[in-house]
Amino acid sequence: MSQLYASLFYQPQVTEIFSDRALVMYMVEAETALAKAQAEVGVIPQSAATVIQQVAQNVLDKIDFDALAVAAGLAGNIAIPFVKQLTAIVKAQDPEAARFVHWGATSQDILDTACILQCRDALAQIETLLQQCYQTTLMQTEIYRHQVMIGRTWLQQALPITFGHKLARWASGFKRDLDRLETIKSRVFTAQLGGAVGSLASLQQHGSAVVAAYSKCLGLSQPSCTWHGERDRLVELASTVALIMGSLGKMARDWSLMMQTEIGEVSEPTAKGRGGSSTMPHKRNPVAAAAILAAANRVPVLMSSLYQSMVQEHERSLGSWHAEWLAIPEIFQLTAGSLARTLDVLKGMEVDVDRMKNNLECTSGLIMAEAVMMALAPKMGRLQAHHVVEAACQTAIENQVHLMSVISELDEVKQHFTLDQIQQFFSSDSYLGNIQDQIDTVLQEATGEIQ
Amino acid sequence: MSQLYASLFYQPQVTEIFSDRALVMYMVEAETALAKAQAEVGVIPQSAATVIQQVAQNVLDKIDFDALAVAAGLAGNIAIPFVKQLTAIVKAQDPEAARFVHWGATSQDILDTACILQCRDALAQIETLLQQCYQTTLMQTEIYRHQVMIGRTWLQQALPITFGHKLARWASGFKRDLDRLETIKSRVFTAQLGGAVGSLASLQQHGSAVVAAYSKCLGLSQPSCTWHGERDRLVELASTVALIMGSLGKMARDWSLMMQTEIGEVSEPTAKGRGGSSTMPHKRNPVAAAAILAAANRVPVLMSSLYQSMVQEHERSLGSWHAEWLAIPEIFQLTAGSLARTLDVLKGMEVDVDRMKNNLECTSGLIMAEAVMMALAPKMGRLQAHHVVEAACQTAIENQVHLMSVISELDEVKQHFTLDQIQQFFSSDSYLGNIQDQIDTVLQEATGEIQ
Amino acid sequence: MSQLYASLFYQPQVTEIFSDRALVMYMVEAETALAKAQAEVGVIPQSAATVIQQVAQNVLDKIDFDALAVAAGLAGNIAIPFVKQLTAIVKAQDPEAARFVHWGATSQDILDTACILQCRDALAQIETLLQQCYQTTLMQTEIYRHQVMIGRTWLQQALPITFGHKLARWASGFKRDLDRLETIKSRVFTAQLGGAVGSLASLQQHGSAVVAAYSKCLGLSQPSCTWHGERDRLVELASTVALIMGSLGKMARDWSLMMQTEIGEVSEPTAKGRGGSSTMPHKRNPVAAAAILAAANRVPVLMSSLYQSMVQEHERSLGSWHAEWLAIPEIFQLTAGSLARTLDVLKGMEVDVDRMKNNLECTSGLIMAEAVMMALAPKMGRLQAHHVVEAACQTAIENQVHLMSVISELDEVKQHFTLDQIQQFFSSDSYLGNIQDQIDTVLQEATGEIQ
Amino acid sequence: MSQLYASLFYQPQVTEIFSDRALVMYMVEAETALAKAQAEVGVIPQSAATVIQQVAQNVLDKIDFDALAVAAGLAGNIAIPFVKQLTAIVKAQDPEAARFVHWGATSQDILDTACILQCRDALAQIETLLQQCYQTTLMQTEIYRHQVMIGRTWLQQALPITFGHKLARWASGFKRDLDRLETIKSRVFTAQLGGAVGSLASLQQHGSAVVAAYSKCLGLSQPSCTWHGERDRLVELASTVALIMGSLGKMARDWSLMMQTEIGEVSEPTAKGRGGSSTMPHKRNPVAAAAILAAANRVPVLMSSLYQSMVQEHERSLGSWHAEWLAIPEIFQLTAGSLARTLDVLKGMEVDVDRMKNNLECTSGLIMAEAVMMALAPKMGRLQAHHVVEAACQTAIENQVHLMSVISELDEVKQHFTLDQIQQFFSSDSYLGNIQDQIDTVLQEATGEIQ
Repeated sequence: MSQLYASLFYQPQVTEIFSDRALVMYMVEAETALAKAQAEVGVIPQSAATVIQQVAQNVLDKIDFDALAVAAGLAGNIAIPFVKQLTAIVKAQDPEAARFVHWGATSQDILDTACILQCRDALAQIETLLQQCYQTTLMQTEIYRHQVMIGRTWLQQALPITFGHKLARWASGFKRDLDRLETIKSRVFTAQLGGAVGSLASLQQHGSAVVAAYSKCLGLSQPSCTWHGERDRLVELASTVALIMGSLGKMARDWSLMMQTEIGEVSEPTAKGRGGSSTMPHKRNPVAAAAILAAANRVPVLMSSLYQSMVQEHERSLGSWHAEWLAIPEIFQLTAGSLARTLDVLKGMEVDVDRMKNNLECTSGLIMAEAVMMALAPKMGRLQAHHVVEAACQTAIENQVHLMSVISELDEVKQHFTLDQIQQFFSSDSYLGNIQDQIDTVLQEATGEIQ
Repeated sequence: MSQLYASLFYQPQVTEIFSDRALVMYMVEAETALAKAQAEVGVIPQSAATVIQQVAQNVLDKIDFDALAVAAGLAGNIAIPFVKQLTAIVKAQDPEAARFVHWGATSQDILDTACILQCRDALAQIETLLQQCYQTTLMQTEIYRHQVMIGRTWLQQALPITFGHKLARWASGFKRDLDRLETIKSRVFTAQLGGAVGSLASLQQHGSAVVAAYSKCLGLSQPSCTWHGERDRLVELASTVALIMGSLGKMARDWSLMMQTEIGEVSEPTAKGRGGSSTMPHKRNPVAAAAILAAANRVPVLMSSLYQSMVQEHERSLGSWHAEWLAIPEIFQLTAGSLARTLDVLKGMEVDVDRMKNNLECTSGLIMAEAVMMALAPKMGRLQAHHVVEAACQTAIENQVHLMSVISELDEVKQHFTLDQIQQFFSSDSYLGNIQDQIDTVLQEATGEIQ
Repeated sequence: MSQLYASLFYQPQVTEIFSDRALVMYMVEAETALAKAQAEVGVIPQSAATVIQQVAQNVLDKIDFDALAVAAGLAGNIAIPFVKQLTAIVKAQDPEAARFVHWGATSQDILDTACILQCRDALAQIETLLQQCYQTTLMQTEIYRHQVMIGRTWLQQALPITFGHKLARWASGFKRDLDRLETIKSRVFTAQLGGAVGSLASLQQHGSAVVAAYSKCLGLSQPSCTWHGERDRLVELASTVALIMGSLGKMARDWSLMMQTEIGEVSEPTAKGRGGSSTMPHKRNPVAAAAILAAANRVPVLMSSLYQSMVQEHERSLGSWHAEWLAIPEIFQLTAGSLARTLDVLKGMEVDVDRMKNNLECTSGLIMAEAVMMALAPKMGRLQAHHVVEAACQTAIENQVHLMSVISELDEVKQHFTLDQIQQFFSSDSYLGNIQDQIDTVLQEATGEIQ
Repeated sequence: MSQLYASLFYQPQVTEIFSDRALVMYMVEAETALAKAQAEVGVIPQSAATVIQQVAQNVLDKIDFDALAVAAGLAGNIAIPFVKQLTAIVKAQDPEAARFVHWGATSQDILDTACILQCRDALAQIETLLQQCYQTTLMQTEIYRHQVMIGRTWLQQALPITFGHKLARWASGFKRDLDRLETIKSRVFTAQLGGAVGSLASLQQHGSAVVAAYSKCLGLSQPSCTWHGERDRLVELASTVALIMGSLGKMARDWSLMMQTEIGEVSEPTAKGRGGSSTMPHKRNPVAAAAILAAANRVPVLMSSLYQSMVQEHERSLGSWHAEWLAIPEIFQLTAGSLARTLDVLKGMEVDVDRMKNNLECTSGLIMAEAVMMALAPKMGRLQAHHVVEAACQTAIENQVHLMSVISELDEVKQHFTLDQIQQFFSSDSYLGNIQDQIDTVLQEATGEIQ
C-alpha cells in the first residue's frame, strides 16, 4: 500500500511492528533464542551462543536490506539471505561461532517464529486499543442510556430505542472480542522449530529439548508437533482479529448513516483539516468511517486468502505459505488502524440530541404503530390488531395526518380506550421495553458482576 | 446447489438439518418456546401456550411450503408468511390462542434462533465426525509411526519422515479443532429475542424474564443484550467450522499428491463405481479429494461473505442479514461432507509401503544431503559444510551418480570419516530426529496425559 | 440454497435453466450433437446417430435422477452415471446404436458443453432483462431530467443534481454492460470436445472434423484447441455478469438510502404483502434492495472462487473444476434475480418530488457554498474564495442562520455583488452545470446517434 | 507489502508506476491537463495555464511527501492536501495563476484520472510482457510439438499428449488475454471530470467543452457522463488482468507438478542463489511458481473486494472508493510480477525428455487402456469394450503384469486381432489424435492466418 495512505488506514505502532526493519529484528530474536536454547541443551558451545547473542544486539544496523530484498527474489524468502548475512556478521566477530548460526533450523522456522512474535506484539496493541474502545463505549453508554432516539431496521424508522442501548450493544461486542483474544493466546502463540521437514533430524536426539528451551526463551508455548504445513493457529488468530474488524465496520456504518445531513444525530469529531472537501467548504466528511469501511471491505477478502492458503502441500508448502506473508500483516494493520479511528470517534463524537428528538417526530406517529398495536392486541388479538393498525397507517399516510388522529377516530379503539390512554400510546419514552435491563447487564459484565 | 451433487459434496444428516422442512421445524420450535416462556412469565395465558404447543407437534404437515416460498419474495423473509400460516393453523384449533402466536417477537428473532438451533445440531454432527476422524487418525498414526517415507517441501523431495509423523500432525490439528468447538459453544449458542428494535417493547416490564425463560427452554445461553445487528457470534461459529475445512483441504491435497501415478504411496479406498473414468478404464480418480478440494476453495469465500456481512445497518440490517442465509448453511454442509469423505479415506486408505521405500531412492542419495551436511558441520562449520555438500550434489547430478560416491571421494570428508561412517549418513532410518517424541506427545494429548 | 428463498433472490427462467432437469437436458443435447457430428464425419454409423437422436427426444422422463445423484458421489461427476443410463436406454431401443453413445468423448466434454449451453441461454435471459432495465431507465431519465434534488457525496449533502442525471448515469452503466455482453459472446460460447486428455485420440484422424461438426450443430464457436484446463472463457463470462451485479448493487444502495424514512425521495413500488413487517404495521421495507444487496455481497465472493479455480492441474483438474459447478449457476441466478427486481423498481418506483425539494432546503443554504465560492472566485481567487466561504459556513452553522444571510453581510462580497446577485447564487436550478448535456449524450448513445 | 518481497512478487516498472512518487506525478499530469483544457475553452486565462504547466515540470521535487501523508489521514484522501501544496507552489511563482489551480474539479476527478493513467501505463507493460510470453510459448510449442509425454487428469496419468500440445493450450490462453486487452482499452481508459457531484456546476456552460479538451489532452476517451459512482470500467479492467493471473497460476501449478522430484519432466531455470534451501543443499525449489501461486491466491480475493466496492453510495461514495486504492495497484503489480517470472521460466525451462519418456512407462501399459478400448469398441461396442478393458486393467494391477500381456490372452480380443495389432495399440506415438491439428491452428492464429 502506498505510504501516503498509512495515516488514513493504519496505526503507527502496529505498522512499525510489521515494518521490514522490525521483521528482521524478530528474525534476529528467533535466531538468538535458537542459539541460546541449543547452548543450554548442549547442542552448540555456550561460547558460540554468547557471541551470537552479543552480535545480535546491534546487528540491525549491519544488515544490508537492499541486498536482502534482491536475494529474496531468487531464494523465495528472506530467511535464506538473512541467515547468510547474519552468519557473515558473526563470522567477522568470531569464525568459530559463525559455524553455529541457524544450527539445524529451516528458513520457515525462523520466519514462522518471527511472524508469531510480530502477531503477539501486534495483538497486545490491538488488545489495548480494544480495551480503550470498550471502556469508552461503556462510559458513553452510561451518559446516553436514557437518550431516546429512533431505532431503524431495513434502513427504515422502526421503534424508539435509546442511544445508550445502541452503545451497550457495541460494548457487548467489544467484550466478546476481548474474551476471544484471551481464549486463543495460549493456543496460537506457539513456537515453530522443526528443521527441513519437521523432524529436527539434524539435532539428533536433542530435538525436543531444544524446542522446549527455544519456546521458553521466547515466551511461547511449545507445540506438540511441528506445524509447518498445519496453519490453523495463524488463521484462527487472524480470524479473531477479523471479527473485531467486522464489528468496527458495523459501528462505522451506523455512525456514518446517523451523520447523514438529513439525519444529523451523531457526527465524527471536528478537527482542523479533517473531513473538509476541496470544493465544498461546508462539507464535514466522515473520514474515519470511510477508512474503516474500506478496511471492513478488505479484511474479509484477506481472510478468504488465508483460509484458502491452509491447503498446503506436504511438509512445507509451495505458494500457500507465501500468500500468508501478504495477508497477515495487513489484517493486523487495517484492524489496528480502524480501532484507533473508532476510539477517536467514540471519545469525541458529537451527539445532537435535538436532531434525535426531531427525527422521532418525522413519521407523524407511525413509529408508534407497534406500541398502539400491542396496546390493542389484548383486546382484539395480535393479528387483528395488526390489521387495524396497518390500515390506520395507510389512512394516515394517504391523508397526511398524524396516526393518533386516525386511531382515535376508530370505533374498535374508542370502545376500549379513552383519548388520554390513546395519547399515552404515542409517548416514545414509555415504549422502551427492557432496554435499561439490557444496559445494566452489559455494564455489570464489564465489572465482573455478571459473567 | 444442484441436488445431483449432494452425495458428492454434502453429508446427509447436516443437509437434512438445513433442509427447508427442518428450517421451518426449527422456527416452530422457537415459536413454541416463545409461547411457553411467555405463559411461564405470565405474559400470555397458559391455555394459549398449551394450544400452540399442541398444534406445533404436527404442524409441519399443514404448512404450505409453496405458498411460503412465494410470499417470501414479497415479504423479504419467510418468517412473516410463516407466522401468518402458523397463526391460521392455531386459529383453526383455538381462535383465542391464535391471538398470542409470535407475541412481541420480530421475524428476525425467530429466524436467528432457528439458525442457532440448526447450527447447534449441525455442529454436533460435525463434532462427532471430527472426533471419529481424530480417533482414526490416531490409530493410523500408531500403525505407521515407524513407516519411513520421504518428506517433501516446495513439492520437492526433502528429507525422510515417517508416515506416522504426517498423520500425527493431522491428528494434532483435529485436536485443536475439537478444543475450539468446546471453547465457543457457550458464547455462540445464544438465544435471540428482541422484538422490532431489540427492546422487546411490546412485552413491557416482562422482556428480560421472557428472554430468560425462552433461552432456558431452548437450552441456549441468554444474551446480555439483543444482537440483531451484532453478528460476531455467528461468524465466529462459522469461522471455527471454516478452520476445520482448511485442515481437511490440506489433507486432501496431501493424499491426492501421494496418490499421483508416479508416486503411488497412498490411495483413496476402492469401491465399485468409485473414481472410474468414462473413457479410461484404468483410472482410479481421487474422488473424495476432488470434492474436498472444491469445498476448500468455496468455504473461504463464503467466510469472506460472512465477515463482510457483519457491516449491518442500525438495529436490523438491509441485505447483510440476508446474505448470511446463503452462506451459513453451505459452510456447514460442505464441511460436514468433507469430514465424512475424509473419515472414509482415513479409515480405508491403501498405503503402499514399497512405493514409499522406492521413492526414497529416487534421488540417488540427494535427499540425505542434509544428513551428510550435519555430519560434516561439526568438523567444518555449518556454512562450509553446506557449500561442500551443495557442490557435491551438483557433481552427483551432473555426472548422474549417487551422492555417496561423490562424497566418499572428497578429501575434506575422507580426512574426518571412514567409508562405513559415510555409508551410515545415507541411512534414512537414522535421520528422523525427534519424530517419535512428537508422535508420543500427540498420542498422549489424546488420552489427556498431556494438556 | 433453500428453495424457500428462490422467489426472493432468483428469477424463474434462469433458475429453470440451471435446474437438475435442465442440466441433464443440456447434456442430452451435447451427446446428441456428438452422435450427429460423428455420423456426418463418418466416425459412427448414421443409423446409430439417428437412433440416439430419436431416443433423446423424450429421454428425460426415463432418467433416474435419484440414481444419478447417488452415483455422482462415487463417480465424482454426474456425466459418468448419466452416460451409463443413456447407453442403457438407447440399448433398450437398439443395442447396436448403444455401442456409439458418448463415442470418444470424456465426461468433461459433455459437462463443459452443457455448462456453455446453460450459460448461453441464461445470458440471453439476462440480456433481455438488461435491455428492459436500460430502456426503462432511459425513459425515467427523460421524465426526471429536470427534477432537481440534492447530490450526495461521502453520505453528506453536497450540491444539487437532477434525478434524471442519476438515472442517466445508471443507464450509461447498462449500456456498457450490453456492450460487454456483445463483445464476449463469440469468444466464450465455444464448444468443448477433447476426449480424455484433449487429443480426441480415440477419433484418430477425424478429431478436428468432428469438433467442427459438433460445434456447428450446437451453434457454438469451434475452439482452436481443447480448453479442459484453461478456464478463462468461463470466468470471463461470469466476470461480465458480476459487473452487472455490481452496478445493480450500487443502484439498490442508492434507492434504499433515498427511501430512508428521513429522506423519503424514492420508494420501491408498493404491493399487497410487500415489505410489510410482522410487528411494525407502518413499515415499508425495501425488499428488493435487501435481496439485491445480499446478492451483491455474494456474487463477488463467488467470482473469487472462480478466479482461484483457474489454477487447474495438468490436462484436467482435481477439485478446481468441481468448484466451478457450485459458483457459476449461482452467479447467473443471483444476477438474473437482481435484474428482475431492479426492473420492477425502475418501472414502479414512487418518486416524491416534494421531499426532494424539501431536502434541498435542510442545510440552510450550505449546499450552495460551492456555487457561492465559484461566483466569488473570479474576484478573489479560488483558494481565497474557498477560505471565505468556509468561514461563512462555520459562522452560519454556529449561529444557526442561513448561509445567505452571512454571505450577504461580508464586505469582501458586498464590494463585488448586489443582494440580488447574491440571492441568485443560492438558486439550486441555476447551478447544475452540464447535466443536461450529459443526459443528452446518454440518450443519444441509446439511439445510436452517438457511438 | 514488505519492500523485502518486492523482487519476489512484483515487477520493477509496474511497481514504479504505482509508487507514491509516480502517483503524485500522475496527479500533476491531470491538474496540468485541466488547466490546459480550461485555458483552451476560455474558462481560465491562458497565462495561468502556462504558469501551471511550467511549474508542473519539476514540481515533484518540491512536494513534501511526508506532509501529504500526514494530511491524508485527516482529509480522507491525498488530493486535498496535494492541491493545497500545488497551489502554494504555483503561488510562489505567480499568485494570479494560483487562483486557477484545480479550477472546478473535485479530488476524485484528479485521483480517478491519475488512477486511469497509472492503469494505462501499467497495462502497456503487462501487454508487452504478455506478448513476450505468447511469442516464447509459441516458439516452445514448435520445438516440443512432437515430444510425447503423459497427459494427466485428476492428478492421475491418463493418456499420452505432447508437451507442445500443453504449450499450445497455454499459448491459446495468452492470445485470448491479448484479444481482451485490445477490446477493453477504448472503454476503460476514460477521463474523469465531474466536479463535486458530477455536474461540473462551477464551470457553468463550459463543462462539456472542458471535459472534451481535458480528455483529448490526456489521450483518454471522453465519458458520456461522469462516473464517480459507477465503477464498472475500473473493475472490468482489473478483471481482465485477473484473468491473466489465473492463467499464469495454472501454468505455474503445471510446471511445479512436473518439477516434482518423482516426475522431473520440466524444471525452472537454474541460477546462482535461486531456489536453494538453507538446510538442504540439493534442493531446487520452484521459486517462480511459489511467487506466482501466492499471487494467484491473492489476486482473486482482491477482485472480490473490487466487485464489492462497486456498491457505492450516491454521487460519490464513502469507503468503497477508498477500498479501490488498496486493491487496484496490487492486482497490477502481482500480475506483472507473475508475468515476468513466467516469461523467465518459459524462456529458460529445462525439459527432461528422458523423464517424459520414462514416465510413460510407469503404469505398465495401463495408460494405453483407452487406446485398446477404442480399438476393441468397433468390434464389441464401446460399453462392452470398456468393461473388458476395465477388467483387464484390474487383472494387470493385481498380478503386477503389463496390460498387454493380459489383453493378448483374452479370447474376445484374440478372435479379432493378431498379436502384432495388439502391440500396436500400446504405442503412445500412435494415439495422439488431432493434437498436431490443434497445434497448427494455434500457430496460425498467431500469424493471423486464422481469426
